[in-house]
Amino acid sequence: MGRWEPNARGRLEQAALELYAERGYEQTPVAEITRRAGLTERTFFRHFADKREVLFAGSGRLAELCAGAVAAAPAAATPMDAAVAALYAAAGVFEERGDLVRLRQSVIDANAELQERELTKLATLSGALAEALRDRGTDDLTARLTAEAAVAVLKVAFEHWIHGSGEQTLRHLLGECVDSLGTAVARGPGAAGSVSG
Amino acid sequence: MGRWEPNARGRLEQAALELYAERGYEQTPVAEITRRAGLTERTFFRHFADKREVLFAGSGRLAELCAGAVAAAPAAATPMDAAVAALYAAAGVFEERGDLVRLRQSVIDANAELQERELTKLATLSGALAEALRDRGTDDLTARLTAEAAVAVLKVAFEHWIHGSGEQTLRHLLGECVDSLGTAVARGPGAAGSVSG
Repeated sequence: MGRWEPNARGRLEQAALELYAERGYEQTPVAEITRRAGLTERTFFRHFADKREVLFAGSGRLAELCAGAVAAAPAAATPMDAAVAALYAAAGVFEERGDLVRLRQSVIDANAELQERELTKLATLSGALAEALRDRGTDDLTARLTAEAAVAVLKVAFEHWIHGSGEQTLRHLLGECVDSLGTAVARGPGAAGSVSG
Repeated sequence: MGRWEPNARGRLEQAALELYAERGYEQTPVAEITRRAGLTERTFFRHFADKREVLFAGSGRLAELCAGAVAAAPAAATPMDAAVAALYAAAGVFEERGDLVRLRQSVIDANAELQERELTKLATLSGALAEALRDRGTDDLTARLTAEAAVAVLKVAFEHWIHGSGEQTLRHLLGECVDSLGTAVARGPGAAGSVSG
């Protein structure tokens, strides 16, 4: 009690994700998590406000990381280039945490309330990207559309990565999705946009 | 009681949205809604499962309308053209219901839980669009990316329409956003995608 526990946060996260996946998120009390991690509830609440935060504490850091990557992109980079740099930064984190990321996703996929929460976190990420783009001088409309498009790319690439054969890296899939999106939204001669004129 | 009430559903919706906006969604019981509408609670529950459904019953119909527009797009239309046709169909409904749409949005904007629900409905719309595109023979990756991009365009154009000066139609703003997105995600020579190669 009270003494410093090596990697307490990581052990709690690992234990929580395992239990949420095995028994269901709703069915797992904090006491079970701390028992498996060999730590006290007091230690748990020093690291996490509640059991939901184990799943979403990383989302805020991810948004910060992405906004930082946008800010650090070369001045000559287009808004989409800067947003793609942010996606690659995010991909690095996901790939490094591979097994935990997959475990977490299986928990989210099994619970409608957590899925709603996840969508909110993605909307927050989009907002952070848009703000970082505006800070670079990108106009508001372009910033918002680019940020939404980037999050769309991340979502689709991530799903393929999680549910796919596992042969391709997330970074590779991101690159494919960016290219596919560019092709898909290119305005061709028969573009419906002309209908609106 | 029991007799047919002219436009009962519309009157209940109008009364509910007014009350949610005036007093807050949480603070409005169904009894208040029916009192203002001059109808019985029995009539309310014949039309809506609960008070939240007054806000979201239209989302399912919107997804059907959009999927139908994708299916009805000419065979030669690109996936994005078909998705944009769906957006214009949606815009027609929003513009027709103008005041109610604005009232509804002010209610959603004031309540975090309703915002999460709204994001889920947008994800459902994206899923319906993607499915309609796959039914046209679009590959899965392109279908998902196009659907997400279309929903992104709808979100951003809608926000500008709701919070803007009111001088531009939603259809005009949609066209602008489609063009801006096309410009933003076009792969230029300095594109970050090349970093992944």
